[in-house]
Amino acid sequence: MADKLIIFDTTLRDGEQSPGASMTRDEKLRIARQLDRLKVDVIEAGFAASSNGDFEAVQAIARAVRDSTICSLSRANDRDISRAAEALKDASRARIHTFIATSALHMEKKLRMTPDEVFEQARLSVRFARNLVGDVEFSPEDGYRSDMDFLCRVIEAVIAEGATTINVPDTVGYAVPELYGNFIKTLRERIPNSDKAVWSVHCHNDLGMAVANSLAGVKIGGARQVECTINGLGERAGNCSLEEIVMAVKTRKDYFGLELGIDTRHILATSRMVSQTTGFVVQPNKAVVGANAFAHASGIHQDGVLKARDTYEIMRAEDVGWTANKIVLGKLSGRNAFKQRLQELGVAMDSEADINTAFARFKELADRKSEIFDEDILALVSDESITRGSEQYVFVSLAQHSETGERPQATIVFTAGGKEVKGESDGNGPVDASLKAIETHVKSGAEMVLYSVNAISGSTESQGEVTVRLQNSGRVVNGVGADPDIVVASAKAYLNALNKLQSKSDQVAAQG
Amino acid sequence: MADKLIIFDTTLRDGEQSPGASMTRDEKLRIARQLDRLKVDVIEAGFAASSNGDFEAVQAIARAVRDSTICSLSRANDRDISRAAEALKDASRARIHTFIATSALHMEKKLRMTPDEVFEQARLSVRFARNLVGDVEFSPEDGYRSDMDFLCRVIEAVIAEGATTINVPDTVGYAVPELYGNFIKTLRERIPNSDKAVWSVHCHNDLGMAVANSLAGVKIGGARQVECTINGLGERAGNCSLEEIVMAVKTRKDYFGLELGIDTRHILATSRMVSQTTGFVVQPNKAVVGANAFAHASGIHQDGVLKARDTYEIMRAEDVGWTANKIVLGKLSGRNAFKQRLQELGVAMDSEADINTAFARFKELADRKSEIFDEDILALVSDESITRGSEQYVFVSLAQHSETGERPQATIVFTAGGKEVKGESDGNGPVDASLKAIETHVKSGAEMVLYSVNAISGSTESQGEVTVRLQNSGRVVNGVGADPDIVVASAKAYLNALNKLQSKSDQVAAQG
Repeated sequence: MADKLIIFDTTLRDGEQSPGASMTRDEKLRIARQLDRLKVDVIEAGFAASSNGDFEAVQAIARAVRDSTICSLSRANDRDISRAAEALKDASRARIHTFIATSALHMEKKLRMTPDEVFEQARLSVRFARNLVGDVEFSPEDGYRSDMDFLCRVIEAVIAEGATTINVPDTVGYAVPELYGNFIKTLRERIPNSDKAVWSVHCHNDLGMAVANSLAGVKIGGARQVECTINGLGERAGNCSLEEIVMAVKTRKDYFGLELGIDTRHILATSRMVSQTTGFVVQPNKAVVGANAFAHASGIHQDGVLKARDTYEIMRAEDVGWTANKIVLGKLSGRNAFKQRLQELGVAMDSEADINTAFARFKELADRKSEIFDEDILALVSDESITRGSEQYVFVSLAQHSETGERPQATIVFTAGGKEVKGESDGNGPVDASLKAIETHVKSGAEMVLYSVNAISGSTESQGEVTVRLQNSGRVVNGVGADPDIVVASAKAYLNALNKLQSKSDQVAAQG
Repeated sequence: MADKLIIFDTTLRDGEQSPGASMTRDEKLRIARQLDRLKVDVIEAGFAASSNGDFEAVQAIARAVRDSTICSLSRANDRDISRAAEALKDASRARIHTFIATSALHMEKKLRMTPDEVFEQARLSVRFARNLVGDVEFSPEDGYRSDMDFLCRVIEAVIAEGATTINVPDTVGYAVPELYGNFIKTLRERIPNSDKAVWSVHCHNDLGMAVANSLAGVKIGGARQVECTINGLGERAGNCSLEEIVMAVKTRKDYFGLELGIDTRHILATSRMVSQTTGFVVQPNKAVVGANAFAHASGIHQDGVLKARDTYEIMRAEDVGWTANKIVLGKLSGRNAFKQRLQELGVAMDSEADINTAFARFKELADRKSEIFDEDILALVSDESITRGSEQYVFVSLAQHSETGERPQATIVFTAGGKEVKGESDGNGPVDASLKAIETHVKSGAEMVLYSVNAISGSTESQGEVTVRLQNSGRVVNGVGADPDIVVASAKAYLNALNKLQSKSDQVAAQG
């Protein structure tokens, strides 16, 4: 049997570190369940010691997911590692991923530690972690820019202490495939006990080569784990894309000769869930999951495709979850059909009461819209879970008017801490007027750094999904709102962002 | 001196083949001028024989651009090649790029020709082209999946006939770097006269490896031309990204050892122009040109960046055109400042009258908006050039109202063929009502396949830019409209799309 390539997804940890991509505990839980459905081998659920919010998210995911291994990042110190172990206590399979920088630049400028100090701390941390869990991953941060001799010394020591996976990050996205592959190969050849651990690659996409670098680490270097994220989410230009890695290994099995555990049919739904949750759009020309990835325009190509499908297609769209028939539910669909579709979409509802609330909103939407697409359902449920519970601000109603030559006007009613308030304002456009009307009461002082709208299923008859990104005192949050009326969707998104801004605790964050 | 890597941009040809990315002659001309400013070596301006529109665009670009070589694609037949030569007649540097498929699959299923027939046609076409221009590029379509012996025979023959550049496309995006690089290397070693031509790579991104494959063709294979597009635009998952190739070669000069002619400071402006013209968004985590490409979120990273910039940065944001100070103009800016900024942004206006019209619109916008960003100017000018001339439908005024519990209403006034008409409708939201109000008169029967809004500079005080993609009888067009009022911007975008749908002629199109 061929070797298996382990897929380690870090959407919820490295992906979440993107400015503006932070997610709530419930959002992370929903995505983790979807990753489990996708049969990802390892889910890096967060960085437990970085904040209470992250701790709770890792804990909730460890309790909810049964098949995938759940991993928490931690710096190389006993406190971080203990917090990670505590958050992972209830996981059916738990991994601690500890890291410390090993490049001269990072040790000197960031850690202000000598190489010997770093060596000792790496060794002792892995020893400490191994006493808490059996599955310990170690990453030398900025490993690819580290001194080879020193790196060999550190890795040999941590393997001797029981590290089961060694991950070599190209933290700044500087590698090219040939050099990165040979770097891993050399490490494995020079380190005497290298065969005692699984080797892993972690590449960033700053020069557009994260996928190729990762695969060179696998093919040339012999790595058997790839760290990646859905949609290539991640700081700066992001991480290696899970969907690209998986489809490359699958499509070119003749070359890579590796097995994968992934159920590729869930790739598209997962991509959409991550995009909608974070507000990070997927460009149309994105490989595998972009709207055009399987579309053909030119006359010659269309002709070619008609004559023989494989003249221009190397993958089948169905294999990654694209279906021709996207209409799933309508006005007459019952509660069971709705519930089943939710399950197929990977949306887990905590209680029957939640399903009832969501179903009521579904019926309300179906009254206004004849065809309900998967995207509508995901938006509706996302909106549902967001506004559920004891939010500070809840939308009630909106009236707005604009007319060429006059200044747009809006009147909004919402609850603030349970009490109904009304705001009125004009603005440059009806959306601007509505948000200013909210601010007449809230006075958040937040700066809007992004505003975008997508019609969830193409036309303007469908729901509009609005993403609003607010920044205040160094914190960045995304609010999402969906409604067939764009102005209402914008007001909901803005209130959602204000709620997040209020509740979000400060964080320290992590390694790349 | 190091070898030079020739950058061949095909945004206007292969990029334009993306479903929904078609551009008008004026839009192509504006982008070509910007590519010239970027100092692209070769601009593939279109496929002259495919339609009158494409012919005119190639001709206009050939007349306007002085530095870059202007290239037209053509199938391997005398008629196509003559049309290409005619369109290129006034170019200061002209290239004809002729292609024919050489893979067994394409020859049999698409061309229905024998290998010997393909061989003859390739040879005769290059001979014919060489009698018309001195610079002839030949591409064996689906070259990477072609039989090596046959491919060597064809390429040797076309070089003997005078082909000056040999381009080897990975038409379906199936390659991996090591194999693709060795494929080019083998071709060059086996073909006796291979040193008489410049070798070129053309890779698609279906498996996320277009950049790495191209660079393997350069490093391992010895190619000295890369074919690429701005933002990686192109069919399916698109082509190799110009910005990624350029920054990889520049950042890793230690490895590639190649010179480039590109003025990287214009990369970002070019990316934005292409994105705004086509309506294809650039995802935030896109390398080099994505909004997050140079942003750092996590506490540890921010700290690292503060302590030493190169702990997390391998490129300087300024080098690709990102600037901290994006505010360029305001209410008090004069016509000269406006004109100069247009030039800096690469926008060439055909006459002083056009500048006056654009400046009047600028002043009108400045009355409503205190800070005018580059994006606003580009949108305004784009809108300007779109609505200029004898368009069928022109926006006049709009009034709309929505209120929770009532059905949104809109009344629109626009001119149709010079005559003012008024439409009224309700809808699911104010945008839907406005577009339905337009359709009460136009009755286009077009299907909306995409609707998206971006606030041009982040906040809702800024202009909203709306992209509407319509499909009718197999034709797909994008309409773009900008206004601080999103509903008005949507109506303008819709009218713009209707105008394009009316004027666009049928096309045959081209190779990958």
